[in-house]
Amino acid sequence: MKTINFVTSNLLKLQQVQAILRNNTTFKLVHHPLELPELQASLDEIAINKCITAATIIGDAVLVEDTAFTFNSLNGLPGPYIKTFIQQIGLEGLVRILSDFEDKTAVATSTFAYTEGPNQPVKLFTGTMNGTITQSSNMPENQTNWQSIFQPEGYHINYAMMEEDQKNKISHRYKALMLLIDYLTHSTI
Amino acid sequence: MKTINFVTSNLLKLQQVQAILRNNTTFKLVHHPLELPELQASLDEIAINKCITAATIIGDAVLVEDTAFTFNSLNGLPGPYIKTFIQQIGLEGLVRILSDFEDKTAVATSTFAYTEGPNQPVKLFTGTMNGTITQSSNMPENQTNWQSIFQPEGYHINYAMMEEDQKNKISHRYKALMLLIDYLTHSTI
Repeated sequence: MKTINFVTSNLLKLQQVQAILRNNTTFKLVHHPLELPELQASLDEIAINKCITAATIIGDAVLVEDTAFTFNSLNGLPGPYIKTFIQQIGLEGLVRILSDFEDKTAVATSTFAYTEGPNQPVKLFTGTMNGTITQSSNMPENQTNWQSIFQPEGYHINYAMMEEDQKNKISHRYKALMLLIDYLTHSTI
Repeated sequence: MKTINFVTSNLLKLQQVQAILRNNTTFKLVHHPLELPELQASLDEIAINKCITAATIIGDAVLVEDTAFTFNSLNGLPGPYIKTFIQQIGLEGLVRILSDFEDKTAVATSTFAYTEGPNQPVKLFTGTMNGTITQSSNMPENQTNWQSIFQPEGYHINYAMMEEDQKNKISHRYKALMLLIDYLTHSTI
C-alpha cells in the first residue's frame, strides 16, 4: 500500500482525517507533526506553498490540509485567517462582527494539497459545506472551535454538536478526502 | 553617504517615505520594487521575515516596512491583514464590522525592519498613532485607503484629509523613520 506523509501540527485535524480514512485501503498515512509557515494568500495558495515546503523537508510524497471559514457578508473573510480571528476575538466576536449584516450564511472549506515529492506538481482537492452562523445559547465560554457557531445546511444542530461519525460522512473535510482517494485510486502510481 | 536598499512594491509608500526623508543626510535610499511574500504572523514577525528574504535577494543592507491597522474592540484585528480586509469588504465593511462595539478607537502602526545584509541581525523601528474610526459623510466610493476612516487623536479631520506635509510630521510612519534615522546616525557604521 502506498505511503503518504501527512504534515500537520494540529492533532485534532490528524484524528479527524484518520477517522474519515478508517476504511481506506488506497494509502497509508504517516504523520509528521511539523508546524509550517502560512502565507497571507488565498486558501489554495497557502496550501500549495505549505505542500511544496513540506515536500522539500520530507523529501517524499506529502499531503497537507488547510481550512477556510468564509462569511458571505464579509466577501471571503475570515477565510484562511479564521484561526487568528478566533484567537483575537473569540466566537462571540465572530458573531458580533456580523451584527450589522442580514446575511448570516457561511461556507466551510477544506483543501488538501498533495504532491508526489519535491519538484513535482501539486494537486488540490477541495470540499465545501454551506451553512449559517448561529449563536447557540449553550455556547461554552472560551470555546475556540468555529464549528460551535456553524449550522450546516439541512441540519438543525451545529457542526460541533454532531456525532463525529455522522459529521465525518458529510463534512467539508470528508468531501475533500473522497476526491483525494478517488484520485489516488485511479492514478497509475 | 550610506546607501540603503528600500524594498517595496507599494509606490505610495515609497513616495511617502521619500517625502519624510527629504532633509535626511544620514543615508540614501535606493528603491527595489520587489513584491515579497508576507506570512500570517504578527507585524514584527512579518517585517523580520520580509527583511531577511529581501537581504538574501539583494545581498546588501535592506529596509522594508509593514503597516498594521488595529481596532481595539477587535483585539488586534485587522492588524497586518488590513490590506485583505479592505480588498474584501472595503471601508464601509470596516465600519460595519464595528457596529456592535462601542469602542471605536484604533491604532495605526508602522514597523521598519532593517538589516546590514544577509545573515546579519534585523533591527525593528516602530511608530504608532492612536485615533478613532469615523465614517466621513464625504467618503468617496471605492475608496481603498483606511486613512479616510481614521481620525488621529487631537485632530478633527481624518488622516486622508490632512495635508501630506502636515501628516508627514506626525504620522506613525514618520515616528518610525525618526527612530531609524536616530539609530543610523548613532551607530558606528
